[in-house]
Amino acid sequence: MIYLDNAATTRPDKQCLEEAEQFLYENYYNPSALYAEGYNLHLNLKEARKNILSCIADESFDLVITSCGTEADNHALFCGGRRGNVVTTLGEHSAVFSAANELKQRGIEVRFAPLNADGSVDRQKIIELVDNKTSLVSVIHVNNETGAVNDINAIAREVKAKNKNTLFHSDGVQAFGKILFRLDKCVDLYSVSAHKIGGMKGTGALFKRKSLVIKPFIYGGGQENGLRSGTENVFGIKMFELAAKKRYASIKNCYQQVTRLNEAMWKTLDKSLFTRISPEDGSPYILTVGADGVRGETILHEADDLGIIIGTGSACSSNDKKRYSRVILACGTDENLADGILRLSFSPENTVEEVTEAAKVLNQLVKDRKDIMA
Amino acid sequence: MIYLDNAATTRPDKQCLEEAEQFLYENYYNPSALYAEGYNLHLNLKEARKNILSCIADESFDLVITSCGTEADNHALFCGGRRGNVVTTLGEHSAVFSAANELKQRGIEVRFAPLNADGSVDRQKIIELVDNKTSLVSVIHVNNETGAVNDINAIAREVKAKNKNTLFHSDGVQAFGKILFRLDKCVDLYSVSAHKIGGMKGTGALFKRKSLVIKPFIYGGGQENGLRSGTENVFGIKMFELAAKKRYASIKNCYQQVTRLNEAMWKTLDKSLFTRISPEDGSPYILTVGADGVRGETILHEADDLGIIIGTGSACSSNDKKRYSRVILACGTDENLADGILRLSFSPENTVEEVTEAAKVLNQLVKDRKDIMA
Repeated sequence: MIYLDNAATTRPDKQCLEEAEQFLYENYYNPSALYAEGYNLHLNLKEARKNILSCIADESFDLVITSCGTEADNHALFCGGRRGNVVTTLGEHSAVFSAANELKQRGIEVRFAPLNADGSVDRQKIIELVDNKTSLVSVIHVNNETGAVNDINAIAREVKAKNKNTLFHSDGVQAFGKILFRLDKCVDLYSVSAHKIGGMKGTGALFKRKSLVIKPFIYGGGQENGLRSGTENVFGIKMFELAAKKRYASIKNCYQQVTRLNEAMWKTLDKSLFTRISPEDGSPYILTVGADGVRGETILHEADDLGIIIGTGSACSSNDKKRYSRVILACGTDENLADGILRLSFSPENTVEEVTEAAKVLNQLVKDRKDIMA
Repeated sequence: MIYLDNAATTRPDKQCLEEAEQFLYENYYNPSALYAEGYNLHLNLKEARKNILSCIADESFDLVITSCGTEADNHALFCGGRRGNVVTTLGEHSAVFSAANELKQRGIEVRFAPLNADGSVDRQKIIELVDNKTSLVSVIHVNNETGAVNDINAIAREVKAKNKNTLFHSDGVQAFGKILFRLDKCVDLYSVSAHKIGGMKGTGALFKRKSLVIKPFIYGGGQENGLRSGTENVFGIKMFELAAKKRYASIKNCYQQVTRLNEAMWKTLDKSLFTRISPEDGSPYILTVGADGVRGETILHEADDLGIIIGTGSACSSNDKKRYSRVILACGTDENLADGILRLSFSPENTVEEVTEAAKVLNQLVKDRKDIMA
């Protein structure tokens, strides 16, 4: 089997699993308990937070561990967007997009900045939308459907220059552990997820500027500095820490390997059948192409039967049963092409042989389908 | 080591772990993905929800899987308590108590019913607090600090008789998988947690009357019927299902075994040193006693050094750094006794030999401490 849907989720890292296994069974105590076994876990979690933090942030940030990237996004949106207007983009993952729409329901004005053809936000337009009543700006770091990278540090600086009281949040789920960057001092909130980089489903985090006071998202026993109550998922958090540490220890090599995969895949795909949606300068972890006049979902199922797993866009969007991706349409892609979208997303563990073989299979499947339809 | 803090968390069940292991590593796909491997996980989760549901509810309920019991409690409180007044008790876990206090901050009137000496709610008083403006009543099923059982089905019926539009929620975290009951048709919402019965931290659930329309707690990709978005923690959910199935297959035997443990422990404890707080007719899973004039925390640490792990109350309360438990004080316990609270909580895997030995050690520790202080 060739797995090329790593933007949806990744296989947990085996080495990290072996190291974290003690927290699965043996070391099962409640980290809030007062006895030594509980307190040791409390210290373990403190260390985990510190290690995850240091991957991309300096000491002016702290970390709220959450149950997923979506929860981190919701925490940022609902705690940051409490008044005035909120500015975001048409390219957001549904975790931000749906939360922004809920803010609208609650009477907050929400302004959506348009996208460029590659899925990145129109820089000039988003800054124009910010005014003296903007409480929050939220911009996805790496677009999960095209891989386009928004320069969030630069956008955050422009936002603050226009309104220093505006909070800046970014959904970094497809950026963390994949592209090289550090959080600028103009960024206030940043969401990440563990299972996109070899950790477990059920763990994410919200990076938060230390000086920023926000309301809790879940109230109760006071875990996560009172901002996110609930018994800590120790095993999931340790897996997150280990996966993040491992990834950041070799992030440049991973980036180079994935760039090779992306290039080999694109090189092998038949350009008479596939149109490239992803930008050339985007995250190499995602290569999105459109097969004009063919249904992406059909190709996905046919490829699956042949042992090749690919996506057609955000896995999370499958629940809304819409035929076309709203993000792909917002890029200005026409409906025929939008119908034939395939998202190929890589892990450093994929090989050039795998992606080359997968590309050949996709060429054949699309060609056959077109022949049938002709 | 003798572990008697099973109300704080339990060791994951080894047999369930072995069975769920495939979802930890091999079967790692995103359940929202369209290919067969993802869809099979989607079906697996559907089956898991059905199996957890059927433990205590009929087909008029459905299930929202959450990241913990606290999240389920927050979902119920924030979605149910949106107007008028909210009625709850002084005996709630902080997951409900803190959420209720946040509702107060948001301008909702919150009424707290007083407790009986054993930690159960005063039945007459709580019904008196319900009026035609009560949007939600929330009553803990088994008090996590004393084991007192509130007859939530009967209370729910009385609430509905007084105001049929009032929603009824119960925090069932210490009841699910422990005491025998089925949800009455007058109950609307019910919260449970996996890690209290051999499942993993990071998974809980909210039982919801199917006909009840509530707002989502987390917005995004539309998982959990749109009520709780975020990639599903498949491994955690499967562990929850397996642990719940296993527990309910032998729930009467477990209850009998734990009753034996509770009785053996109480029989061995020196009645001249310990005052019983837990009721005789409460959940046998919790035995709370007070050692008058001795600090419970001191005894906890001394016992830990001797390999005996006990609690002093809710583990979740350790984060608020208060000396006395608000729940124990609300029972009318005087401060001297409240200072010396020990919570002994059992698993069916504990043995009579273990609890007898632990009781003897606690007798000696309290006696020694009193001798030093005398």
